[in-house]
Amino acid sequence: MSKEIPSRSEDYSQWYNELVKKADLAEHSDVRGCMIIKPYGYSIWEKMQQALDKMFKDTGHVNAYFPLFIPKSYLAREANHVEGFAKECAIVTHYRLKNAPDGSGIIVDPEAKLEEELIVRPTSETVIWNAYKKWIQSYRDLPILINQWANVVRWEMRTRLFLRTSEFLWQEGHTAHASSGEAVKETLLLLDIYAEFAEQHLALPVIKGKKTEGEKFPGAIDTYCIEGMMQDGKALQAGTSHFLGQNFAKAFDVKFSGRDGKLEYVWGTSWGVSTRLMGALVMAHSDDDGLVLPPKLAPIHVVIVPIFKGDDELKAITEKVDQMMSELRKHNITVKFDNRDTYKPGFKFAEWELKGVPVRLAIGPRDLENGTVEVARRDTKEKQVMKMEEVAVNVLVLLDEIQKNIYQKALKFREEMTTRIESYEEFKKVLDGKGGFVLAHWDGTKETEAAINEETKATIRCIPLDGVEENGKCVYSGKPSARRVLFARAY
Amino acid sequence: MSKEIPSRSEDYSQWYNELVKKADLAEHSDVRGCMIIKPYGYSIWEKMQQALDKMFKDTGHVNAYFPLFIPKSYLAREANHVEGFAKECAIVTHYRLKNAPDGSGIIVDPEAKLEEELIVRPTSETVIWNAYKKWIQSYRDLPILINQWANVVRWEMRTRLFLRTSEFLWQEGHTAHASSGEAVKETLLLLDIYAEFAEQHLALPVIKGKKTEGEKFPGAIDTYCIEGMMQDGKALQAGTSHFLGQNFAKAFDVKFSGRDGKLEYVWGTSWGVSTRLMGALVMAHSDDDGLVLPPKLAPIHVVIVPIFKGDDELKAITEKVDQMMSELRKHNITVKFDNRDTYKPGFKFAEWELKGVPVRLAIGPRDLENGTVEVARRDTKEKQVMKMEEVAVNVLVLLDEIQKNIYQKALKFREEMTTRIESYEEFKKVLDGKGGFVLAHWDGTKETEAAINEETKATIRCIPLDGVEENGKCVYSGKPSARRVLFARAY
Repeated sequence: MSKEIPSRSEDYSQWYNELVKKADLAEHSDVRGCMIIKPYGYSIWEKMQQALDKMFKDTGHVNAYFPLFIPKSYLAREANHVEGFAKECAIVTHYRLKNAPDGSGIIVDPEAKLEEELIVRPTSETVIWNAYKKWIQSYRDLPILINQWANVVRWEMRTRLFLRTSEFLWQEGHTAHASSGEAVKETLLLLDIYAEFAEQHLALPVIKGKKTEGEKFPGAIDTYCIEGMMQDGKALQAGTSHFLGQNFAKAFDVKFSGRDGKLEYVWGTSWGVSTRLMGALVMAHSDDDGLVLPPKLAPIHVVIVPIFKGDDELKAITEKVDQMMSELRKHNITVKFDNRDTYKPGFKFAEWELKGVPVRLAIGPRDLENGTVEVARRDTKEKQVMKMEEVAVNVLVLLDEIQKNIYQKALKFREEMTTRIESYEEFKKVLDGKGGFVLAHWDGTKETEAAINEETKATIRCIPLDGVEENGKCVYSGKPSARRVLFARAY
Repeated sequence: MSKEIPSRSEDYSQWYNELVKKADLAEHSDVRGCMIIKPYGYSIWEKMQQALDKMFKDTGHVNAYFPLFIPKSYLAREANHVEGFAKECAIVTHYRLKNAPDGSGIIVDPEAKLEEELIVRPTSETVIWNAYKKWIQSYRDLPILINQWANVVRWEMRTRLFLRTSEFLWQEGHTAHASSGEAVKETLLLLDIYAEFAEQHLALPVIKGKKTEGEKFPGAIDTYCIEGMMQDGKALQAGTSHFLGQNFAKAFDVKFSGRDGKLEYVWGTSWGVSTRLMGALVMAHSDDDGLVLPPKLAPIHVVIVPIFKGDDELKAITEKVDQMMSELRKHNITVKFDNRDTYKPGFKFAEWELKGVPVRLAIGPRDLENGTVEVARRDTKEKQVMKMEEVAVNVLVLLDEIQKNIYQKALKFREEMTTRIESYEEFKKVLDGKGGFVLAHWDGTKETEAAINEETKATIRCIPLDGVEENGKCVYSGKPSARRVLFARAY
């Protein structure tokens, strides 16, 4: 393999950038901040989509599609929202090109200027609540449980593949309810779905919590999130679910008549995860040899590499491989036979390790004689020899074991990287040392939050939902605090 | 049902517009030309996507994602392409909004002007071939068989839901090959896939053919298409597949070294279908009472309406319905029990007819006594009484029959609406009379094509692939012609 990547300890950031490119997940395009998601990367994203889409639908949600463009004036309707989103965005001002009169090429036709500029959606609350105004009259029209799979654009000057790009893909749920309680329940349901998805599919343990006032979504009453720990000790927010209260209903004048005939503003939620999850997937599990993919998201579960000299050996191996592949496929295992004669087995081994295929089978002439196969797992690099006829069932069990092992490893790491801290000295020491999550008391003020961030670059990731009430003192101000919050430096 | 729509004979155009809205498929947004695809409409689109996606993958294609934005200069690289696409498009010129200094609201920040304007993709050949240049060096890198599901924007002044919108959803395949023959084969393979999809899923018989020079895709060598016939006698192009030759490879300098080591430009294809298919679906099959959906694309296959007075009757009916639903679901039949007590059965019947649910079951107290169900099919409006325990199996057969019947009906209509014509008099008479497809001789010149279009508004839809060689005279010029071409007025 010539596709070398730096090790994590050498340069974690560069390791990530190179791995994403070399493993054919994504690359930068010539358009600032816009990435190309390559087929191998996209097929992982498709698996994420399928799993999430099923979870949404199983809980009563439906998909729809709203316009890419948002009139400038819409964004301005919700005061916090416009502050949060109307800054860096792509603005459409014209709708026609024409040939330059001097023959120098094509130019924007100055005659074709839009009366009102259009913003390429950074998120769709405004355009969707504008539609909900027409759709909702009575409590009978509620709840509305809509999700959208879409591209969004937030202009970014410093971008990183998957983690921060100007255009990204995501899903955004937008629901409307007849009561506050129902909307809060929906917000928390989605938080649970995201956590379950992260843990069961991404194999990423997450902490569920609530954002502080300073970190919440512009336009929300409360923002809930799931936070994961990456291998470099930095946190990554992997999904958010917002209780919008009546903010967008008020901004777009969306009222419903209740059972009692009274008019009331509608209650809302919104929630989303994005292609950022691809970044989390890579950063959480992969190693210096390449991707480590949890089987549930791996485009290929098993790769089979024949060890052969000449066509006769390949032919004999292929016969056995065909049988095994058909057995494996019966168990819904995706399998690839790498019978290229242009590369040596060692090269292929390294390539499929780079691409994170969970299980590799190798078969040579001696295996044919013995009726065996060498089985190597990507996560632990362990190898074992199995009987050919037992491969399919064994691999099925193995894939399940790999899925669990990747999760357990990440969980153990996260636990090691979570430190309970009592003093600001210790706080800074841990952050500058091993990093990770810091559970510390905070006095609940914006000022302290800002000061800590200023001095340490750490942010309050969330107020964990499973946190216990305990009397303590803020690590920064020494003022009283009733519970610990989760700090970390973050992506 | 208060949701009345005009009849097709009264006003076909208005019938379509109203039906699309009343059946909850889509509606106009406040943004010019951009539609909102509502959940019911979107779920039909999802079924189309799933079926097509499977067909693409079964033939070796993979999905990927390329940027939404195209630098203006890219469009200009392929001469015909820029002529065809660089006219009406959405142009991003700025990347930041700011508060107006006079406090009047938010304005575009004049400081944040892009050096080069970005075009919201009208189609992605340019941005994709720019990437292919980096991906392709040798024949070993070929073929590349990529598809993308995406939104695209072509600025439209006069729009119609699904048929012509500024933003629409589609898939665009972009493949790269080592030889002309292989690329042509791919072009025709996709044409076959589109035709099979249209006939098997949309239940829409289509004519496969080649576009004339004047009608082909800007940048293609040859454009192939499938053409369907709508109920008002107008044709609708339901999909296109383009053989691009080496045009985009030359524009973006994409060469590969062949087995012989020689450098050659890569051969390309592109192909797409869009949410326009939703319009075709409605226009081809629906009637004055609403949608008629082929079961393969229907979000709900079966609706069950209880006929009851009071809770006791509803309870007794519900018990039986639960059994039936579980039986139906075992056969992968999607079923909805409409047990709302706020509407009468007649209202519900009309509503589900409007929404095109293929099969309706009605159960009242007498059915309970007799162990029967009334089964009504949406396509023919026929009703029959069935034994409850036989419903599941019978409905499965019935759904298949409905799918076939809708296709056969459309085929019969298409055949009746296809006229072989020998003179220009007759040509005009048929077009102004019953309309439909006209098979006529054409001298092969652009001038004749333009003159006929000018005088009759008919275009050459395609040169049918299954057309036979026969000596004839052009209906317009009288010059010799070797085969008939397909004319029609079209959407």
